[in-house]
Amino acid sequence: MAIRVNLPDECGLGQALSVIGGSWKSAILWELHERALRFGELRRRLPRISEKVLFEQLREMERDGVVRREAFDEAVLRVEYSLTPAGTALNEAAHTLALWGLAHSGRGGLPVAAE
Amino acid sequence: MAIRVNLPDECGLGQALSVIGGSWKSAILWELHERALRFGELRRRLPRISEKVLFEQLREMERDGVVRREAFDEAVLRVEYSLTPAGTALNEAAHTLALWGLAHSGRGGLPVAAE
Repeated sequence: MAIRVNLPDECGLGQALSVIGGSWKSAILWELHERALRFGELRRRLPRISEKVLFEQLREMERDGVVRREAFDEAVLRVEYSLTPAGTALNEAAHTLALWGLAHSGRGGLPVAAE
Repeated sequence: MAIRVNLPDECGLGQALSVIGGSWKSAILWELHERALRFGELRRRLPRISEKVLFEQLREMERDGVVRREAFDEAVLRVEYSLTPAGTALNEAAHTLALWGLAHSGRGGLPVAAE
């Protein structure tokens, strides 16, 4: 499902949807919102995503300032991904939209419970 | 800018982004959130949208239960579009995401003021 947005920049929604809109970005945001995860852990939690796409999405999220990549110089190099404060704020902002989605996921917009 | 979302249905965000994600839907939602408007008024407010696309987006939003279309049988048929309660709720839910976008629209996620 493709989503294109034509919104005046001053509205802010366009910027937010451009950051959260990548194929897996909202799912990655959700997985990282509890704790930092390694690349392999993220892949196990998101089995339908390819290594290449996961790497690209993480790099874009890092560029957009919502994900932090930390490398730990140990016997074996360890790399962890976590949400920045902006990433945590985005996850929370998207939560209200997710609640709307749950409440209105019956087509026709009727609250699911009301059907 | 295309946004594809791969999210488990139970998260709700996928449903919300599928309703608000059409090219102009968030802009239409914004225009209608204050009062009902006629088709022509909507077109004047959204000059970059074609008649065909506006008609299609409104019909999809009607199908998704966020827009209501009312015809008034007067000397000349009058048709008005307005938000349903679900549409108003979607506009409010998207607002938090829009605020995030405004606060973080400096690339790199730094709050614009902090740059």
